[in-house]
Amino acid sequence: MRSLLPFTVSHRDPGSSARAAVLETAHGSVETPAFMPVGTAGTVKGLAAWELERLAPQMILANTYHLLLRPGVERMKILGGLHRLMAWHGPILTDSGGYQVFSLAARRRVEENGVVFRSHIDGAEHRLTPESVIAAQASFGVDVAMVLDECLPYPVAPEAVAPSVKRTLRWARRALDQAAKEIEEGWLGGVFAIQQGALSEAHRKRCSEDLVGQPFDGFAIGGLAVGEASEQLHEAVGFCAPLLPEDKPRYLMGVGYPEDLLHAISCGVDLFDCVLPTRSARTGKVFTSIGDINIKNARWAEDGRPLDSNCSCPTCVRYSRAALRHFYISREATSVVLLTMHNLWFFLSLMRRAREAIMASRYGEFRRRIIERRRQGPDDAGPKKR
Amino acid sequence: MRSLLPFTVSHRDPGSSARAAVLETAHGSVETPAFMPVGTAGTVKGLAAWELERLAPQMILANTYHLLLRPGVERMKILGGLHRLMAWHGPILTDSGGYQVFSLAARRRVEENGVVFRSHIDGAEHRLTPESVIAAQASFGVDVAMVLDECLPYPVAPEAVAPSVKRTLRWARRALDQAAKEIEEGWLGGVFAIQQGALSEAHRKRCSEDLVGQPFDGFAIGGLAVGEASEQLHEAVGFCAPLLPEDKPRYLMGVGYPEDLLHAISCGVDLFDCVLPTRSARTGKVFTSIGDINIKNARWAEDGRPLDSNCSCPTCVRYSRAALRHFYISREATSVVLLTMHNLWFFLSLMRRAREAIMASRYGEFRRRIIERRRQGPDDAGPKKR
Repeated sequence: MRSLLPFTVSHRDPGSSARAAVLETAHGSVETPAFMPVGTAGTVKGLAAWELERLAPQMILANTYHLLLRPGVERMKILGGLHRLMAWHGPILTDSGGYQVFSLAARRRVEENGVVFRSHIDGAEHRLTPESVIAAQASFGVDVAMVLDECLPYPVAPEAVAPSVKRTLRWARRALDQAAKEIEEGWLGGVFAIQQGALSEAHRKRCSEDLVGQPFDGFAIGGLAVGEASEQLHEAVGFCAPLLPEDKPRYLMGVGYPEDLLHAISCGVDLFDCVLPTRSARTGKVFTSIGDINIKNARWAEDGRPLDSNCSCPTCVRYSRAALRHFYISREATSVVLLTMHNLWFFLSLMRRAREAIMASRYGEFRRRIIERRRQGPDDAGPKKR
Repeated sequence: MRSLLPFTVSHRDPGSSARAAVLETAHGSVETPAFMPVGTAGTVKGLAAWELERLAPQMILANTYHLLLRPGVERMKILGGLHRLMAWHGPILTDSGGYQVFSLAARRRVEENGVVFRSHIDGAEHRLTPESVIAAQASFGVDVAMVLDECLPYPVAPEAVAPSVKRTLRWARRALDQAAKEIEEGWLGGVFAIQQGALSEAHRKRCSEDLVGQPFDGFAIGGLAVGEASEQLHEAVGFCAPLLPEDKPRYLMGVGYPEDLLHAISCGVDLFDCVLPTRSARTGKVFTSIGDINIKNARWAEDGRPLDSNCSCPTCVRYSRAALRHFYISREATSVVLLTMHNLWFFLSLMRRAREAIMASRYGEFRRRIIERRRQGPDDAGPKKR
């Protein structure tokens, strides 16, 4: 199968496994390391497409589960596909819906053929199969589709892992066959496989060995950030990433905090997605270069400084912490817009700077400096610019 | 008292009382007729300041009542004033808080000195006096402050009108004295009086006669759009507007529908404010050149056309009705942003075009054409651009 998603490693950091690379897609290049903002149902919550463009993410993520239920495959076709719906013309990756379905717990059952579940919107029964989720993503016109996988919970009984991983592997082969058909019929995207295996290095190894021989366009690490401690996550990323091919993009799904991203990059991960910056914006949590801020806190009520004096996002350029606190506690809809812009700017600029540091062969130093400064915590003793 | 708000009529429409004028303020010129978007608590709900700038309103309105309760006068001073809080550096007009307080009904009582009320936020007792509301608005640094007035409900007992109007007139004089002090102390704004008198031409006349001799910078028509029928509103505007001076701006408070604005302009009104475009955006009601749309309606679910094919707002340029319906029913925060942008664009562009029509001495024809097209209603039978 000819790859429609060529991937080139531009530079490797000499002191770690970090690499700077480019993934080409029909909707543009994705310079990695890259963080994908989440646009679940067709918008990054609170942002018009022109705001998203201003943030210039390399690629964005949308959720197949939500889009399958509404507007649905048929209607999405009529509407001209996902890029048209979102009014976003850069690269898009969709997940397979598996993660959301497995989170439904009581409302779904797993069969060999796929997963049957009830919609959270109207209770109607739906079925996802490895083939149907690839067909759906291809019909959405996405650049990267993910295979249907079984995402195990944390903690999980050790004996449950092997059969689940085997099913994920059988599903991956079926997904790849379906992708080949879709590409034959004109889809200009590609498919990433998902490595599973809970926190077991042995299972992750067996899973990867099966996947890496197949012509996937990229490989994801799934089933992490599901409740395990930060140390466990870091350790797992450390042994999961090197199991995946050097010459294909590696994507760590659903992670995470800035410190987690910086660690994973050092292990050779290229792509990330997480609701953290966008969801946090809606609960008043703000990421900054000197640690994180809860904007609700009364300590900011008369603070005329920007959220982050090292940030040049549109929000920091114009608004004080005090104003943003006022908007948040007054429940102004604009608060979501302003804090989402800032948080995404922080994550995206962190990735851009990580890439620059890799290109300059000084990633280790960069990572140490970022983590140290964020440990300081936001200062409220200094002179206030009012 | 020297006026800090010079007002010049640029052109009068020969076929009506409509006029095109310019009101100068310390934060820029206000070309009229103009519609002021409402930014109650310091934001136009859903819009970052840079979005608001893109809409380029001539002036915006904020609510003194809300700002007095939060952040409050002292904190607003510390934060550098309302322009700084809003990150909006064009002209701002604030209402006096009277309208909001009178809507509280059971939770307020009127005394000769002012109004006592309980906060809707924490139940704390507050007092507004004619002096305190001017002082508050001046300390916010607004360009136009409104006097405290008594806004009568609809319908109202005829015998209640005269004593209420007399109190409003006594309060107006006290407001003017306070404004003179504030200007002496450096405030660069001005004060508009408010004509009251319910739906009685005689009361409106007596009220105006008392006000027009005083050095106000402009005159508002208050107490309309409080529940009376559209015909009553139009009739009242017809006799209220000519009672106010020709050489000062006339401001019709809290109105209204596009058809109401077009009528009031023909009667010689210059300024408007209303929550209609912004509040409607949050309930899915969309204004267009061919009538209004409820975006929730299933009839738009597969309609690939923009909200209004005659509109060049950022939303219409990028998004289909179907996409906007999907975002609305999916309760996406972005829906508020997109529909607010469109609705405000519609109102602001209507005012700009009204001004052009006045300048070209063809306002009557312009108004007829707009109203006729809006009566058509949005077409859903035509070919769909997908």
